Amino acid sequence: MEAKFISSAQNPLVKKILQLKEKSRERKKTGLFVVEGQRELELAQKGGYALQTLLYCPELMGSSSVNAFTKTSDQEIIQVSESVYGKIAHRGTTEGIMGLMRSKDHALANIVFKDKTPLVLVAEAPEKPGNIGALLRTADAASVDAVLIANPKSDLYSPNIIRSSVGCLFTNQIGVGTTDEIIDFLQTNQIKIYCAALTASKNYVDCDFKAASALVMGTEATGLTEKWLQNSDQNIIIPMQGEIDSMNVSVSAAILIFEAKRQRGF
Amino acid sequence: MEAKFISSAQNPLVKKILQLKEKSRERKKTGLFVVEGQRELELAQKGGYALQTLLYCPELMGSSSVNAFTKTSDQEIIQVSESVYGKIAHRGTTEGIMGLMRSKDHALANIVFKDKTPLVLVAEAPEKPGNIGALLRTADAASVDAVLIANPKSDLYSPNIIRSSVGCLFTNQIGVGTTDEIIDFLQTNQIKIYCAALTASKNYVDCDFKAASALVMGTEATGLTEKWLQNSDQNIIIPMQGEIDSMNVSVSAAILIFEAKRQRGF
Repeated sequence: MEAKFISSAQNPLVKKILQLKEKSRERKKTGLFVVEGQRELELAQKGGYALQTLLYCPELMGSSSVNAFTKTSDQEIIQVSESVYGKIAHRGTTEGIMGLMRSKDHALANIVFKDKTPLVLVAEAPEKPGNIGALLRTADAASVDAVLIANPKSDLYSPNIIRSSVGCLFTNQIGVGTTDEIIDFLQTNQIKIYCAALTASKNYVDCDFKAASALVMGTEATGLTEKWLQNSDQNIIIPMQGEIDSMNVSVSAAILIFEAKRQRGF
Repeated sequence: MEAKFISSAQNPLVKKILQLKEKSRERKKTGLFVVEGQRELELAQKGGYALQTLLYCPELMGSSSVNAFTKTSDQEIIQVSESVYGKIAHRGTTEGIMGLMRSKDHALANIVFKDKTPLVLVAEAPEKPGNIGALLRTADAASVDAVLIANPKSDLYSPNIIRSSVGCLFTNQIGVGTTDEIIDFLQTNQIKIYCAALTASKNYVDCDFKAASALVMGTEATGLTEKWLQNSDQNIIIPMQGEIDSMNVSVSAAILIFEAKRQRGF
């Protein structure tokens, strides 16, 4: 298949890519998002994301092979000039390869558990892309069964989340829904709800996470909403003994997840 | 004491403050650094840092009282205009109060332990201010006995580290030295060295951290240097089961620290 060539920054596709990177609305409308770099593209394809358009700059891409990424005839391959690549790439010109990929449906109904005792991480309204990325990295390393995001503040495909997750956005099973929907989902699946909270809370090391468990984290600023606390099977707390007692949400989540992993014998 | 007033952005003190915020070299030369905000100033003073100069903007500072911060007659109090404050403040104009404070001597010889079984966090050459801040937040929450930084890449008083630590820079006992100095310090104090490493490592949950222990973390990119591994009493590892298996260094440190806390009964 012969590649098209774009050398003008005025090309409509260049504008479309910039919009997809900057605007969540544009991503939702088109169902597309941008993935940069060979490793990220590989991880996204391995994670079941479909490539629509591959863009590459031969002068920059080193040993990457375009053919490794394109498998079906409806995929577009476009060669771009160095200056166009510099304009559309977030990371400057280091990799020389990026793709437009189709986003997935993260409906809760699509979540599949491999056994009856899943370990699930729930984050309500997480804000900072860096925190979401760190949560996804920890979830991957712990191989949790699903990450559920309640009332997200932004869509998952923001370039900052993709980047800070170092590709773990693509390796986790992710569900998105409202707080009500996720509570209903957990209860239907008989998954015990453990809410990280400051009141009526039990030391997390005194809880038994070996049964089906969801560890539910609120925001650093305001914690979990009332709805979660009303439906909590057990509120849990990490005992703190410092002067400020403020841990990053991704750090707190990791402490809870790995205590569950310890109890389960990894 | 009557306050001086600065309304010109050309005032030499304005330039000095901007230099102290931007240049590590300037901070080292003068032994001064900048703290913004009431809470941070309080924490720094509580942590034993001496205030040299207090700057405030009455239009912005709300209910803060200048007198609460100044106790000795050699402290300078300077009132600044709103536009000058906007220029010297990192956070825009939200707080209206900042101080020039004297940095501390972080020599290892100054570290004091309250008992014979301290829990110590060591970070070698940590790079990102956000990671250092998160490490300090976790160290505060776990009330570790000291945080030791080996071969630091930047000085501790960078505005980004102060901000990301949410004041925990001031609540922890911090020592700084070369890797050789810190290894020597730990061995002299009979503190067992546990290096987070991928080779010859034992699952961290199978280690006994109840005796005097140092948890030693390298960088995400390259891990610990050979010197640490040669002097390690036990290499430890967090078992990972994901596809990417890459956790943030502050997340990994928190998992190890809180396992030690669990074993010690908090």
